[in-house]
Amino acid sequence: MSEPRVIKTDPYNAETSSDQFATTVTPTAAHYVRSNFDLPVLDRDGYRLTIGGDVQHEQHLDLHTLSQLPAFEARVTMECAGNDRLGMRPIPAGEPWASGAVATATWGGVRLADVLARVQPLDTAREVIVTGADHGPRDDALTPGVVSFARGMPLEVATHPDTMLALTMNGEPLSVAHGAPVRLVVPGWYGMANVKWVVGLTLSRERFVGYFQQQRYVYDEGGMIRPVTRMRVKSMITAPVEGETVSAGSITVRGWAWSGDGGITRVELAVGGGDAWQDATLGTPDGPHAWTPWQATCVVDHPGRLVLRSRATDSSGATQPDVSPWNRLGYGNNAVRPVMMHVSASPPGAAND
Amino acid sequence: MSEPRVIKTDPYNAETSSDQFATTVTPTAAHYVRSNFDLPVLDRDGYRLTIGGDVQHEQHLDLHTLSQLPAFEARVTMECAGNDRLGMRPIPAGEPWASGAVATATWGGVRLADVLARVQPLDTAREVIVTGADHGPRDDALTPGVVSFARGMPLEVATHPDTMLALTMNGEPLSVAHGAPVRLVVPGWYGMANVKWVVGLTLSRERFVGYFQQQRYVYDEGGMIRPVTRMRVKSMITAPVEGETVSAGSITVRGWAWSGDGGITRVELAVGGGDAWQDATLGTPDGPHAWTPWQATCVVDHPGRLVLRSRATDSSGATQPDVSPWNRLGYGNNAVRPVMMHVSASPPGAAND
Repeated sequence: MSEPRVIKTDPYNAETSSDQFATTVTPTAAHYVRSNFDLPVLDRDGYRLTIGGDVQHEQHLDLHTLSQLPAFEARVTMECAGNDRLGMRPIPAGEPWASGAVATATWGGVRLADVLARVQPLDTAREVIVTGADHGPRDDALTPGVVSFARGMPLEVATHPDTMLALTMNGEPLSVAHGAPVRLVVPGWYGMANVKWVVGLTLSRERFVGYFQQQRYVYDEGGMIRPVTRMRVKSMITAPVEGETVSAGSITVRGWAWSGDGGITRVELAVGGGDAWQDATLGTPDGPHAWTPWQATCVVDHPGRLVLRSRATDSSGATQPDVSPWNRLGYGNNAVRPVMMHVSASPPGAAND
Repeated sequence: MSEPRVIKTDPYNAETSSDQFATTVTPTAAHYVRSNFDLPVLDRDGYRLTIGGDVQHEQHLDLHTLSQLPAFEARVTMECAGNDRLGMRPIPAGEPWASGAVATATWGGVRLADVLARVQPLDTAREVIVTGADHGPRDDALTPGVVSFARGMPLEVATHPDTMLALTMNGEPLSVAHGAPVRLVVPGWYGMANVKWVVGLTLSRERFVGYFQQQRYVYDEGGMIRPVTRMRVKSMITAPVEGETVSAGSITVRGWAWSGDGGITRVELAVGGGDAWQDATLGTPDGPHAWTPWQATCVVDHPGRLVLRSRATDSSGATQPDVSPWNRLGYGNNAVRPVMMHVSASPPGAAND
């Protein structure tokens, strides 16, 4: 199996390789990894999840107690908010993600709502601040120094029946890179919401104003600031694999499409440049939060370079744009992305086969 | 030696391979080829260059007569107007050129001014229409049917002392792909002006309105039409070669820069995304029409993905933009282009060497 494509070793960031997108569920070892700091290694026996703030009963839950709650499982397509940053012009600062910071996994664990019910949030609580064990220095923080990765989430998102604390990934306990022993999974949201190495939940009456809430993971479009939340509608071509050589003739193009804003209602394929798009056939996604498979057939007569593009539309009516709005930190680039392949001459006698 | 990258076999179009840019003069076999029709194969003995129109003396020159004119030679960087079309969003229709439709050759032949002097243009002549032997059907022509490749050129461009009829390329007779036996070379202009397989020169008092003058090789920006003429300022990174793996530490980045609007006055290099540019050191171009070499050194500490960008400025004050103005036919894209490399960990002990 192909190794993930390492984008940076320290901290560890890696993309899913282009040849690892053939299946709905991405092999665990190939699933993209985004980390902001050194990976924290937590002791399973000593692990405690501290739940406090605006609650009736502060609690410190161990893994055994957590795992006694009703089991929940979800197949979730997750994309880094910075995926395809390299496709933006000019290229914003930040991790140089091409197009592989997306993958799908089956997460097993418990509903966050069931966890929160144990502590009885006060009526004043409006947000849940989720804190990971990962931390490190950030000189550009409003209060420069060591910051932890932490994110605030509206209570209604936290208590949504599909929001979970995951204990397993594809049937195995979480690996360190994927947030062992406990990570948050918020289906439909960009990766930053899916906090890894979760050690704290704080119920709060105030909007969270931490570094990763207000200085990162915001769309900064010329000073107009909006939070990064749900995944914008997007699609990818997975077969032929980018750079592959195919024989002239009829070829079947396959891929995935996903959106955090609704189901996929349409995928189109363009062969070459220009504005000629054909409709692809949609398959059935493997669960409400997994990407939708699609395929289309086209005839490619001429040997040489082949450029393919796909374009998805979701049930909110949103369609992938040609150019995504530029923003200073380089998030949410869901623009149509061309993929290059090569066409070789048909094999001898192929026309007669 | 690497083969050229074939973009299309019929008609034959090929890019210069990314590993063939190490030298000022591109190896002939690697020089990009752009053709609009089947390559015409002209008989050298039967060849005649017909020169007519607004002239005192219509002439039909054979190769021997042409070659008796004073010899002239020029080293010329030539770029297809459609180079980097794949970098535009949305991708316009047209040949799917990435970044290899540029190269440099030493052209030998005679000055067009000396050729024209033999026919004594009338005072009414304002343009020279240059016709190639290549031709084919174009259903979208204003008069649909078979059209020849032909371009009009202002008389002052035609009689410029550096405008030539080339008979040799890098010391050898022209190959069929490069316009044998005679091609026009107009230093500083995009490739379309450098008509191949030249069989006719027509002195004209009227502006030429042929297919390749008015329906192709024009910037069509939302209906505002301007002719494509000189090469816009541009640069490329040639070492490390795109996709290459380099060791962490100090690396030297090399490339070329060129412009049809003046000499190169500055090249900058950016490592990664964001807006941090460092000045590169310029070398001396190998003649007034050849690209300018540049190099810069940067230190790359972290193993992983490396993104480099270069940006050139010419003596007219023009600088490569982040995004080039989109135009319907996809010409003149001189936007800054990111190049991806990989950084491996330093070899053991390298720090002590």
